[in-house]
Amino acid sequence: MPEDQALPPEVEGGEATERMLQILSTSARLFATAGYEGTSMRDIAQACGISKSLLYHHFADKDEIFARITLGSTRELVQFVEARLPEGATASARLRAFMVATGEYFQRYRWAWIASTTAFWNDPQQRRHAERMLWRDRYEGLVRSLIQQAIEAGEIRPLDVPLAGRLVLSALNWMHRWHKPDQGMPAPEVAAEYFDMIFSGLRASDQGLPPGRPEG
Amino acid sequence: MPEDQALPPEVEGGEATERMLQILSTSARLFATAGYEGTSMRDIAQACGISKSLLYHHFADKDEIFARITLGSTRELVQFVEARLPEGATASARLRAFMVATGEYFQRYRWAWIASTTAFWNDPQQRRHAERMLWRDRYEGLVRSLIQQAIEAGEIRPLDVPLAGRLVLSALNWMHRWHKPDQGMPAPEVAAEYFDMIFSGLRASDQGLPPGRPEG
Repeated sequence: MPEDQALPPEVEGGEATERMLQILSTSARLFATAGYEGTSMRDIAQACGISKSLLYHHFADKDEIFARITLGSTRELVQFVEARLPEGATASARLRAFMVATGEYFQRYRWAWIASTTAFWNDPQQRRHAERMLWRDRYEGLVRSLIQQAIEAGEIRPLDVPLAGRLVLSALNWMHRWHKPDQGMPAPEVAAEYFDMIFSGLRASDQGLPPGRPEG
Repeated sequence: MPEDQALPPEVEGGEATERMLQILSTSARLFATAGYEGTSMRDIAQACGISKSLLYHHFADKDEIFARITLGSTRELVQFVEARLPEGATASARLRAFMVATGEYFQRYRWAWIASTTAFWNDPQQRRHAERMLWRDRYEGLVRSLIQQAIEAGEIRPLDVPLAGRLVLSALNWMHRWHKPDQGMPAPEVAAEYFDMIFSGLRASDQGLPPGRPEG
C-alpha cells in the first residue's frame, strides 16, 4: 500500500491555523486527563476560552478533533523519528537516535502522546484504529530493522529481534507514567541513558557469565 | 509504619469463597476491558451467571469489588515476588528472580493486573490510592535495592539506580499491552529474556565503547 494513502483525507494534512493548534493541544490535554468519554465540546470550548460556535467553525465534532490528535500524532511520531536518523551512521548509532528522537517527540507533544496512548486500544472507530496500527507497525518495524542491521554489522549480538525491539519500546512507552515535565532529567536524556543501559548492559565489565536459571 | 497496618481492614484478608473468587476474577476482566465506569453490578452478575441479589450478598457495591482487585493485587504482587527471591543468592540472581516472579504473577492474574494498571492513576478514592502507592513504592524500592546491592557487590557497574529500576519495571509493566496469553513465549520466559538483555546488554562482546552522542 502506498504510504501516502495510509491516512484518510479528513485527518491528513490541511492548514492548521494557530487557533486550530490551540484547540488541538488543549483537547489533547483534556482527553489525556479525562478520557474521550469524559470530555465534551463544551469542556473544550471553555478550556480554550472560546465560544462553542467558534469551536464548531473549526471542527465538525469531538470525533474529528480526537482523530486529528490520535491518528495524527502516531503518524507524526514516525515521521519525526525517521527524519532524525543520521545518514551514514552505524546501525547502533541510528538506534540511539531513534530512542532520543522519541524522547524529544514525547517531550514536545506530551499531551497528544498521552491521549494517543490511552486511546490506543479502545478507539471507537475501527477503520481509524486500523490506520493507526499501520503507522504503529511502521514504527515498530523501524526499531526491529535497526536492531537487525546492527546484528548483521556485528555491533549487536544475535538475539530475539522482536523481543529486543519490545524492550526498547517498553522503556519509551512507559515514560509518560512516571516522567514529569520540567522535573529531573529531560526525556531525550532519559532515552539516551536507556539506550546506554540496554546497549551496554548493567553488568560490571569484569563479570563473567550472567546468573543462570535457578535450580528446580 | 508497620506493614500490617498498611491496608484497611475491609480489603485486607477475609475468607474468599470459590464464589467470591469467581466474582473477583470475572469483575477484573470486565474492569480491564470496559473500565470502572463502563462496568455495572448488573454486568458483573450477568457475566458470573448469578442474580444481582446473590452478588450483593457477597459484596456491598462495585467499589468494594474494585478495591479488592486493585489494592489486593498490588499488595499480593509485592508479597508474591518477595516470597520468590532466593535466599543467599547473588544480588543479580535475585534481580532476575524478581523479574521472573513478576512475569509469573502477570501470567496467573492477568485480568487483575490489567484492571489494576488501568486504574492506577485515576482511582476515585484518594485514601485507597495512597495505600496502593505504599505497596507500589515497596515494589519499586525492592528493585532499586537489588540493583544497589549488585553495584556494591561489583556485579553491576555504577549507574543511575532509580533510572535502571525504571527500565526494569517499564519492560515488565508494558507486557500487558502486547503479550497474549497462550501465544508465543510465556510471560516468565519473556521476563528472563529481558533480564538477560538488560543485564548483559545487546552489544556484541567484541565491540568497543557505545556510540556517543552525535555532533551538533
